[in-house]
Order: sequence, then structure tokens, then C-alpha cells
Amino acid sequence: MRAVVIGSGDIGTAVKQVLVEHGHEVVTVGRQSGDLQADIGDVESLRRLFAEIGTFDAVANAAGHVRSGPVAEATDEQWADSIASKGMGQINVVRAALPHIADNGSFTLVSGVLADEFTHGSSISATVNHMVQGFVLAAAGELPRGIRINCVSPTVLTESEHYYPYFPGFVPVPGAEVGMAYLRAMSTPMTGRIIKLHKMTS
Amino acid sequence: MRAVVIGSGDIGTAVKQVLVEHGHEVVTVGRQSGDLQADIGDVESLRRLFAEIGTFDAVANAAGHVRSGPVAEATDEQWADSIASKGMGQINVVRAALPHIADNGSFTLVSGVLADEFTHGSSISATVNHMVQGFVLAAAGELPRGIRINCVSPTVLTESEHYYPYFPGFVPVPGAEVGMAYLRAMSTPMTGRIIKLHKMTS
Repeated sequence: MRAVVIGSGDIGTAVKQVLVEHGHEVVTVGRQSGDLQADIGDVESLRRLFAEIGTFDAVANAAGHVRSGPVAEATDEQWADSIASKGMGQINVVRAALPHIADNGSFTLVSGVLADEFTHGSSISATVNHMVQGFVLAAAGELPRGIRINCVSPTVLTESEHYYPYFPGFVPVPGAEVGMAYLRAMSTPMTGRIIKLHKMTS
Repeated sequence: MRAVVIGSGDIGTAVKQVLVEHGHEVVTVGRQSGDLQADIGDVESLRRLFAEIGTFDAVANAAGHVRSGPVAEATDEQWADSIASKGMGQINVVRAALPHIADNGSFTLVSGVLADEFTHGSSISATVNHMVQGFVLAAAGELPRGIRINCVSPTVLTESEHYYPYFPGFVPVPGAEVGMAYLRAMSTPMTGRIIKLHKMTS
């Protein structure tokens, strides 16, 4: 596979490593790093990106940020920025890549444990993660040419120690396991699935 | 209860009727009709609305629209308009009303069957409905002063015959049952719940 991996953080780094270890060609995309540059919050930069890349079989998105803040205090700007980045930004990755991705290609997006388990001030995260998951569930039935779409929902990564304070009592997942989840989504017939990398609380 | 019912369509009409039948005081809000006017797509109109209403115990939102369109064809504007109305518009109802709603008050928002069952061109609906549901799940744990929040997910209403062509094979739900779901959300201890008014497909 020739895979486009967007995002240069701990998740994107782990996805790239697993794909390379399994013999796939990877084109990395970051806002300022990577083989090519784009910002998922800027749909025009995505349109330029995918027109430039040429042929590719898979897009693995690991980019997108969400702001934290209690419902009673979060600002219009915190909401708008979060929706534009991890929410609509990921949907725009699919929309911009769709004319260019190969037949039977795949998209793998990212949500997160804060879709299912909540922390103080995580309502924006929950909203945006659900937004992405809802899109994946429905878009799977609509994409043309055998193209598939799935979503990986990681908890905090073992490698992301700087995020530990925001995930009290959450068992981290090794980056390699997150990379494996992307590889599985890209390499099996699954579509419209959310791969949750945490145990579920009832 | 003194309840604010936003939305003058079939759902809002049904909710108002059930609440009045059960002896509650209802303040209706529409874009151009109702006791007071506001547009949930315009957060400043919501801030003015709730500052003007005075004391109230419940907000039942039945307003918000979503555009329809295949993933490969839907425009930036269709996405943005849908997120701003039924998505962020409902979240802004909660944010704008929160400083004014009574202790132990309640919010009831609306999603829809297109969160769980998909039709051709329903990806925007699925995205926006999940967005609202994700917010409700997380915000329930955060709202202060005993305030609760829930979401009603109706299928097409029996009364909404003009929508039948968009819901092929979907069994309609009577408006009165939708109104009862809102009444139950407002009148019982439930919080962070999605009341689904359709049978689930596995």
C-alpha cells in the first residue's frame, strides 16, 4: 500500500512506524513537518495536498486537536476551533481525498476515549469525537468504488506522558497497538467500524 | 414547570401539546412564530432570548435543520449550515440558557433516527446527530446546580407526511409519543440519556 499518514504527534509517529515495519510506503503530512505540509483545519490546503500526492491507497489521519473547558465556561472560539480541527477537519480529509484515492482504498480517522469516558471539561472532546464517529458510521455506506472508512478510538498513549494528568485512572495504550489498529482497519474488509482501544465501562 | 419550547415544526407542536395537557406552562419560541423569537443558529439571539424570558425550569429544543447530500457531492456550505443549526445551535441553546435556568432544571435536545439508520445522502445528519448526542452524554456530568440534560431521538413523525419519501421503510412515530418522551426526560431523574423512539437494527 501507498499510505498517506497525516499528523506528526505520538499517534501519527506510531502509525507510520507500524506501516513501514509491515512494508508499506508512507507519505507523511504535518503542518510544518513531514514529506508534505497541510493543515486539516484548512480545507484548501487539503485539496492542494491530495492533488499533489498522486496515487495512494489509504489515508490514515492522526491529526486534529480539541480544546478543553467546562460547559459553563468554554468560549465560542474554543468550540469553533475544536469542531474545525478534529471534527470537520477530519471530514474534510475524506472529502478532499475522495476524488484522488485509489479504488478499494481506505480512510482511517481518529476519535478517542473521551467519546465514551468523561473527564472534567471534556464535553467538547466528547462532542467532536462523536461527530467523527457518526460520520464514519454513515459514510461507510455511501463511499464509491469499494472505498472503506473506519475510526480508531485510542485512550491516552503510553508515550504521551505529558497527557497523563488529563487522564486520571485511564490505563494507557502503547503507541504500537494504536498503529496496529490503523493497520488492521486499512488491511481487512472492515468498514463503518469504530476500533476502541480501551475497555468499556457500563 | 415553566418550560421553554423552541421550534414550531411538528416536533415542537407535539411537545407543546403534551406539556400543556399535563398542566405545564409553555413559552414557545420560533424564528418568526411563537411567543418569542430566536434562531438557534444565531447564538446572540439565544443570549437575548434567555435573558428576556425570566425564570424557567426546562428547555425543550425541537429546532434545528440538517441538509442532505452524498459525501462525494455535499458542499462546504451544506456542512457548515447543518453543523451551525442542529449541531452547534443546540449546544448553544444550553450554553445560553445555563446562566438563567432554575436549579434542578432540565434540557432536552433532539437528534434523530438518522444517527443509527442511514439513508442515501444522510451522512451530514448522522454526523450532526452524533455530535448532539456526544454533547449530551458528557455535559450531563458537568452541569451545575442539579441541572439535567437528555436527548430525544425520534424517527419520522406520523404527522410529517412530507418527509415520508426520505424515510423509506421507516415506521413513523406519532407526535404524541415524541411529546411524551420530552415530558419523561423533563419529569424524571434521568440525565445523560438518549431516548430512541425507533427499534434498533443490529
